[in-house]
Amino acid sequence: MSFVTIERKVLEKNDEIARQNRALLSKHGLFSINLVSSPGAGKTTLLERTFAELAGRLRVRVVEGDVQTDIDAQRIAKLDVPVVQIVTNGACHLEAKLVQDALTQLDLRGAELLVIENVGNLVCPAGFDLGEDLKVVVVSTTEGDDKPLKYPAMFRNASVLVINKTDLLPYVDCDLAALRQRALQINPSLRVFETSCKTNAGIPEWCRWLEEQVRAKK
Amino acid sequence: MSFVTIERKVLEKNDEIARQNRALLSKHGLFSINLVSSPGAGKTTLLERTFAELAGRLRVRVVEGDVQTDIDAQRIAKLDVPVVQIVTNGACHLEAKLVQDALTQLDLRGAELLVIENVGNLVCPAGFDLGEDLKVVVVSTTEGDDKPLKYPAMFRNASVLVINKTDLLPYVDCDLAALRQRALQINPSLRVFETSCKTNAGIPEWCRWLEEQVRAKK
Repeated sequence: MSFVTIERKVLEKNDEIARQNRALLSKHGLFSINLVSSPGAGKTTLLERTFAELAGRLRVRVVEGDVQTDIDAQRIAKLDVPVVQIVTNGACHLEAKLVQDALTQLDLRGAELLVIENVGNLVCPAGFDLGEDLKVVVVSTTEGDDKPLKYPAMFRNASVLVINKTDLLPYVDCDLAALRQRALQINPSLRVFETSCKTNAGIPEWCRWLEEQVRAKK
Repeated sequence: MSFVTIERKVLEKNDEIARQNRALLSKHGLFSINLVSSPGAGKTTLLERTFAELAGRLRVRVVEGDVQTDIDAQRIAKLDVPVVQIVTNGACHLEAKLVQDALTQLDLRGAELLVIENVGNLVCPAGFDLGEDLKVVVVSTTEGDDKPLKYPAMFRNASVLVINKTDLLPYVDCDLAALRQRALQINPSLRVFETSCKTNAGIPEWCRWLEEQVRAKK
């Protein structure tokens, strides 16, 4: 029982700091997303394509979360996007305090979009509010079409689903209609995008939606 | 600090039950593996191919771990392999106690190989001994070649790496040599297999190795 109590305290503390993060981001008029997925679903590549598409259109900041490396932050920095890396040293998800610390390292003035790329994990990050406006869950077609059934908390807590690597559909067992339907059964208000970072399919639509959210936040 | 203490107690308790599981499995002369991977790397499909290949050659038992569903146990049951499903109800990894409970539901007499399929998660299951002989980590080529760098604990704690979905190599950005080398840098004693469940490539080699382990354990 003591474990449960402490777990609850950890979450309460997290929620309080998430509120502080949300207030800070609102003060700057920043629209923010918390990008979650399995390892290797293509979050960082999606960001590379997104920032290439949005170059000159949106001022972006990025917080990268990783268990051990700064590989992803290096990739984002190459695009001249200001980025801070959080290394969790083994922890399986980002918490609001880590993001709060990361935000002190970024110049938020004039920024319009903040992307927090979470640790690759379809389970644990679902329960931790970081102060973002909404969660975006990325699923790769190579993971099959049953992931919403198997990891429902993530799909319930997300506002947007990006089905990525659609270029691989001819080669994998993934029924796109079934994947969509299963996700929408869990969360009927999910906004769904289908993207390929190889062919750029769906990237313009996704970017237009991001721009709309940024304008609505201002 | 109290959180750390309790976490340590949880792990100590887990290790004690894992020892009990290990003793039980040894008593039955059972060789056992703990199969871990990201969601959608193909663990269950690998088991389907493995059990088809080993039909009539090895007597197998399976414990399936999942956050929410029994989809995987249903797939295994179709192959006439005795299987028990553990539903963790949101927890991100299997613990030894859950496996201990599951083993009471399986007739272990005469069995030779036990496969425990863990929750799809490359982070949390790394730290929990279930009483298995060894951990097998499955990585899909679609996840890219940087996963050993980003999730080193899993590769350090595993004895075997299965690189799956090699049929997709022409379509994805995955340098197989780099993936191997990065994994072996972290854990030089890793045994590496390359498999495709579409073409059956590598499945016979993997199954021969399993048979050798079973014989060595008897």
